[in-house]
Amino acid sequence: MNSRNGSDLRAFFQPAGVAVIGSLREVMGTAYGAIKNMRRFGFSGAIYPINPNPSKYGEVLGLKVYSNVSEVVQPIDLAVVITPPSTVPEVVEECARSGVKAIIVISEGFAESGKEGAALQRKLADIVRRTGVRIIGPNTFGVVNAANGLVTVPPYTDNDKIERGGIAFCSQTGSIGPHQVPLDDWAYPISKMCDLGNKCDVDEVDILNYLADDPETKVVAMHMEDVRNGPEFIKAARRLVACKPLLVLKAGRSEAGARATASHTGSLMGSDQIYDAALRQLGAIRVNTWQELWEVPRTLLYQPLPTGNRFAVITFTGGQGVIAADAASAAGLAITNFSSDTVRKLSMVFPRLGSNPVDIGPVMSDSRSQSSSNPFHSLEEIVPLVLGDDNVDCATITFSCGRQLVPLYPMVVDMFYRLTKAFTKTVNIWLYGTRFPAMLEMARQLQARRLPAYLDLDIAIKALGCAAYYSRTRSSLQYWENSKRRMGNCN
Amino acid sequence: MNSRNGSDLRAFFQPAGVAVIGSLREVMGTAYGAIKNMRRFGFSGAIYPINPNPSKYGEVLGLKVYSNVSEVVQPIDLAVVITPPSTVPEVVEECARSGVKAIIVISEGFAESGKEGAALQRKLADIVRRTGVRIIGPNTFGVVNAANGLVTVPPYTDNDKIERGGIAFCSQTGSIGPHQVPLDDWAYPISKMCDLGNKCDVDEVDILNYLADDPETKVVAMHMEDVRNGPEFIKAARRLVACKPLLVLKAGRSEAGARATASHTGSLMGSDQIYDAALRQLGAIRVNTWQELWEVPRTLLYQPLPTGNRFAVITFTGGQGVIAADAASAAGLAITNFSSDTVRKLSMVFPRLGSNPVDIGPVMSDSRSQSSSNPFHSLEEIVPLVLGDDNVDCATITFSCGRQLVPLYPMVVDMFYRLTKAFTKTVNIWLYGTRFPAMLEMARQLQARRLPAYLDLDIAIKALGCAAYYSRTRSSLQYWENSKRRMGNCN
Repeated sequence: MNSRNGSDLRAFFQPAGVAVIGSLREVMGTAYGAIKNMRRFGFSGAIYPINPNPSKYGEVLGLKVYSNVSEVVQPIDLAVVITPPSTVPEVVEECARSGVKAIIVISEGFAESGKEGAALQRKLADIVRRTGVRIIGPNTFGVVNAANGLVTVPPYTDNDKIERGGIAFCSQTGSIGPHQVPLDDWAYPISKMCDLGNKCDVDEVDILNYLADDPETKVVAMHMEDVRNGPEFIKAARRLVACKPLLVLKAGRSEAGARATASHTGSLMGSDQIYDAALRQLGAIRVNTWQELWEVPRTLLYQPLPTGNRFAVITFTGGQGVIAADAASAAGLAITNFSSDTVRKLSMVFPRLGSNPVDIGPVMSDSRSQSSSNPFHSLEEIVPLVLGDDNVDCATITFSCGRQLVPLYPMVVDMFYRLTKAFTKTVNIWLYGTRFPAMLEMARQLQARRLPAYLDLDIAIKALGCAAYYSRTRSSLQYWENSKRRMGNCN
Repeated sequence: MNSRNGSDLRAFFQPAGVAVIGSLREVMGTAYGAIKNMRRFGFSGAIYPINPNPSKYGEVLGLKVYSNVSEVVQPIDLAVVITPPSTVPEVVEECARSGVKAIIVISEGFAESGKEGAALQRKLADIVRRTGVRIIGPNTFGVVNAANGLVTVPPYTDNDKIERGGIAFCSQTGSIGPHQVPLDDWAYPISKMCDLGNKCDVDEVDILNYLADDPETKVVAMHMEDVRNGPEFIKAARRLVACKPLLVLKAGRSEAGARATASHTGSLMGSDQIYDAALRQLGAIRVNTWQELWEVPRTLLYQPLPTGNRFAVITFTGGQGVIAADAASAAGLAITNFSSDTVRKLSMVFPRLGSNPVDIGPVMSDSRSQSSSNPFHSLEEIVPLVLGDDNVDCATITFSCGRQLVPLYPMVVDMFYRLTKAFTKTVNIWLYGTRFPAMLEMARQLQARRLPAYLDLDIAIKALGCAAYYSRTRSSLQYWENSKRRMGNCN
């Protein structure tokens, strides 16, 4: 067994040279596809296409083709293997012999596919033990590093760019990655992505240790079907949670889900109650849906943690306020009562404005707002009063988007930025409206100023609830850790 | 009290002539705005702008302005009133005297705004009692009828069209309507919409009776904060549920939500447990979020009701299958076991394909699929085997969208249409991918063939769960009704 030092994985994410081994036929889904994607996202390292028949290809995408990793004189840190499963052990053995440190085995047909595949996978585990080489996979799409453009996935990838940011995703499925998710439309801020696949070697413990130490990663979102080593997982997760939020979507919660897991990764799962208790105890944020796994991290990344769960919400209609109050209750937030000073000042802005949820509908439909060059100027007074109240820890502010307002967006975004940055409260924005392109455009502009925007009110409020939960959890964890023993820090 | 015959509301939705009373200044949000929206959506009836100073305007949008409803010779079925609150009782009185049958009072400043407003609202209720005129509102945006283009909302409305279809929305908030929701981007199939506002007269009982009898309406989605008359509501809802599904988003479930309700509509709410028990007993589908209220109805509208809860799912990755199985459990669906015949035939299509969830990832990445002119041709064999299995009542089929596939969409949509219409199973499609515009385009094309498409897997499966729930409920209701007494039918 290798040491569980996160630095082990550096070769997977920051290789100077990468060998890509497999078919170089010009179709996506092959070794050619992986090379094409690395070029598409501007991978900054060297790429060495490897195929036993180099003369068949000559050059691939302007790169010289080698027949074997041992032929390459320059150092190879990472090999990406996409060859038929039966050939993989030999290819991996050869990489290890040539001094390659890290190997991603993308090929399918291992433990997930029956006895024969399981035997092949055991051979890979053997090579790891004997040689010290590290393997991600098999049955994986590998990794993404937004900082250097490393994207090892072979299928067609319809994102033009991956925004560099602080959120890391690790998963046990190929459904998370630039070939499957609208990263570009969302302007989703990524640090690293990793599909662990069948986990013949590198597993959730390694990746949590690596991400804990990765200075680019500020929030970790994890899709997980099983855990190989419970005590080690708890240790690694606890270390990470002490300095970064960890979200976990534990798939296979239900009996039916657990049965489905066994059939596609060949892994067996423990009871969901055990996972739930462990995740709670170590302070991870448990989410229940795919959408939550993607949406919640942005509030954690862009905003300060709240010091409590006292919540305020500014809506454009009273009906939205009621729905927001229900969502807040479900998310563990308390609809706060404003101080008498805030109530007084709000009611000076507009009659009957002092209660929370703050319904600004009547203000907006007032003729003074209608005729102003900035129809949202009343927010200039209302937002500081709400965020400045000592009884408020976090808030969701509503904005109604429409095509006719697009020219005003830069002004509105500046206003939100200016009004919210004056306070260290946790804020996100709920966008609704009549046109998706207008909503997505506003979301992108807000996010460029670190204001997380949501198209779903319940999810916006859930994200604040998760932030409040993590804030409370971390304080008690840190208190506990400090008083009992010293623990390793992470970046 | 008026009789509770649904036909009372016909004048609100199918007026031959509409008077719009209020400011005709060319800004949205006014009487002018309501007229502008009626024209925008091609209202087929006559419109009469009414303002005490007709000479100030001359014509508005090419329409002659009258000083008073009594001046209009032609019959006026509906008056839309947007004047200052203190003037409303007099305006309404005058309408009633002139023979107007239905009045929508859009003006704010009634029971929701304190004692004075409450007194004004009592005056309106008095007029209703004395004259028999019917009022929707005050504090409402009124109604939409997609069949004749009647849209009484005054604010700017950024939808170019409202698709005529079978889903009715009634609400106690102005947040539901063509000025607030991306109906056009969704190609959302609407029959009627109605914001009940402060309910000085027309309430949820009237609207349920009307929608039960409305042949255009096939599914009713209701946002509700309070019920005025419990026994009458149960009677009306039960009558509707016996022939059409009724979804209810009961806002103000939490204590905080209930408090927020009181402050914005002036209504008091009962305990949520009472609502929950009543809604269950009468067979309504209770949904918990805004998103569910909008998304679930499409499956109920476009697809046949399932005869049971046995669910199959076709996914592109094994990880999606596990998440789908969890979602199915949460939605009350059972992941079905295929018959041995189906298992055998599926495994002849591709090795290891016989289990549910059906993971077609390996089939898709197979070189035969990759090189085919229709990369989805394997679905031609798989979908009929799954839907044809006697153990399957309902199914979600996954499709991965991307810009490069847009030219293939018509072929793919034809294929889904052909393969699913051969069976009377309840089917919806989960779309995921890398580009929102490509996903929305595919959703629109599928929906034009009555195939409900979803961008969220959990919601797609929840919608099938709601369909199975309603199917079961309706059978037992109908059995009960038939054996105990005769009840009125609805359209």
